[in-house]
Amino acid sequence: MYVNAVPGLPEIDAGDDLAALIEEHGDVHDGDVLCVASTVVSKAEGRAYALDDFPPSPRAREIAARLEEVTGDEKDPRFAQAVLEESMELAIEAPFLLTETRFGHVGVNAGIDRSNTGGADLLLLPERPSESAERIREGIDADVAVVVTDTCGRPFRHGQRGVAIGWAGISASRDWRGETDRDGHELAVTVESVVDELASAANLVTGEGDGGDPVVVVRDWAFGDHDGSDNLFRELDGDFVRQALREWEFDR
Amino acid sequence: MYVNAVPGLPEIDAGDDLAALIEEHGDVHDGDVLCVASTVVSKAEGRAYALDDFPPSPRAREIAARLEEVTGDEKDPRFAQAVLEESMELAIEAPFLLTETRFGHVGVNAGIDRSNTGGADLLLLPERPSESAERIREGIDADVAVVVTDTCGRPFRHGQRGVAIGWAGISASRDWRGETDRDGHELAVTVESVVDELASAANLVTGEGDGGDPVVVVRDWAFGDHDGSDNLFRELDGDFVRQALREWEFDR
Repeated sequence: MYVNAVPGLPEIDAGDDLAALIEEHGDVHDGDVLCVASTVVSKAEGRAYALDDFPPSPRAREIAARLEEVTGDEKDPRFAQAVLEESMELAIEAPFLLTETRFGHVGVNAGIDRSNTGGADLLLLPERPSESAERIREGIDADVAVVVTDTCGRPFRHGQRGVAIGWAGISASRDWRGETDRDGHELAVTVESVVDELASAANLVTGEGDGGDPVVVVRDWAFGDHDGSDNLFRELDGDFVRQALREWEFDR
Repeated sequence: MYVNAVPGLPEIDAGDDLAALIEEHGDVHDGDVLCVASTVVSKAEGRAYALDDFPPSPRAREIAARLEEVTGDEKDPRFAQAVLEESMELAIEAPFLLTETRFGHVGVNAGIDRSNTGGADLLLLPERPSESAERIREGIDADVAVVVTDTCGRPFRHGQRGVAIGWAGISASRDWRGETDRDGHELAVTVESVVDELASAANLVTGEGDGGDPVVVVRDWAFGDHDGSDNLFRELDGDFVRQALREWEFDR
């Protein structure tokens, strides 16, 4: 498996044709997986906004005031308003905002970026990242899969890692259920989130800073002959951590 | 970056010299990262056990009975005993056992495997995986980094993905704090858990079933000129999910 960044992509602006730019700068083959950072998808889709685009509701002011109180840092109620508008549910309100986005991804601040925004105040995640992935896929001549990636933190472990927020031309997971180990026992590891693993592999070569290359080509990797599933985001019903967070209140 | 499994490794037994076997079957160069599945590290270190090696305490019986009650599946108190002995703290007792291992990793059943065990009832994780990684690293002639990997699930997202449980010759994370984006703004993504991303990349080519190849070589990847950190496992103090789970009780 080869994992290589596409070099030399220009700064992306609203309306840019990402598929055409990727084909122009990259060497894309049938069977490749293209991992595309959500930042450039968002920029191409015009998801950069000014803080003033989000006049804060009383709820947003309340959330920002509480965050300011518990963190000691200044918090902009317009930012809280943007997070609220992007979210279906708040999982944690303090000491930071952890929310479920409208497309099911749970992340801090609904994944809204304040760096690498191309000069805007805020860069929101794509509205429907799997549809974005499908549009890029359709725009590429070769028969590829596309994964739209983001980076985020997680419980239990420090640091951030690449995750998938949208995908097309590939199942989100390989389902090994019913397959056996060398001794003929059914496998304990049953569902492998390959789009997240592809996003993590891509993040190793993307870089984040001045020299960031937001598109990565994964080549000579095959999903293989397994069942697939597109069920990536947990429902509240089966997510005990979400349930525990519902009952929890930050207290300092 | 190239990510390729080492082909043809034999079934690993207690006492086997993993470093020698990797050198014999793989083509290892200076600068490579070797991702080694914890299963083979555990087998080489004699971490395969029979259930009877874990006579259950009253606490283990209580835990198994509760799990049986809430899941409707038969639960072996000897297995619960093994999990208890491997754990520092239980984060969830039902409807499954989520614990913190003695080396700080939070995982279901303390990472104890019941498939791919080489015929034993149970395969425990290595006792000190970073020390295991260091021993493999020292046994390899080339100047390599070693990541000991496991696969596990996570909150918010379905499926399992590769994670690091031990490492040597590399920092766990790249620390981008203080570095800037193209516009000169400080980056929001500050600490990248590269050992987890390497483990995820490796898991894409490892396979789990009959044809599993437990060792993967990552080549032409560089950590780069960033600060590093070995702080991978969160302390309870900064982990709000762990805190919420402490107060939560599964109720059906």
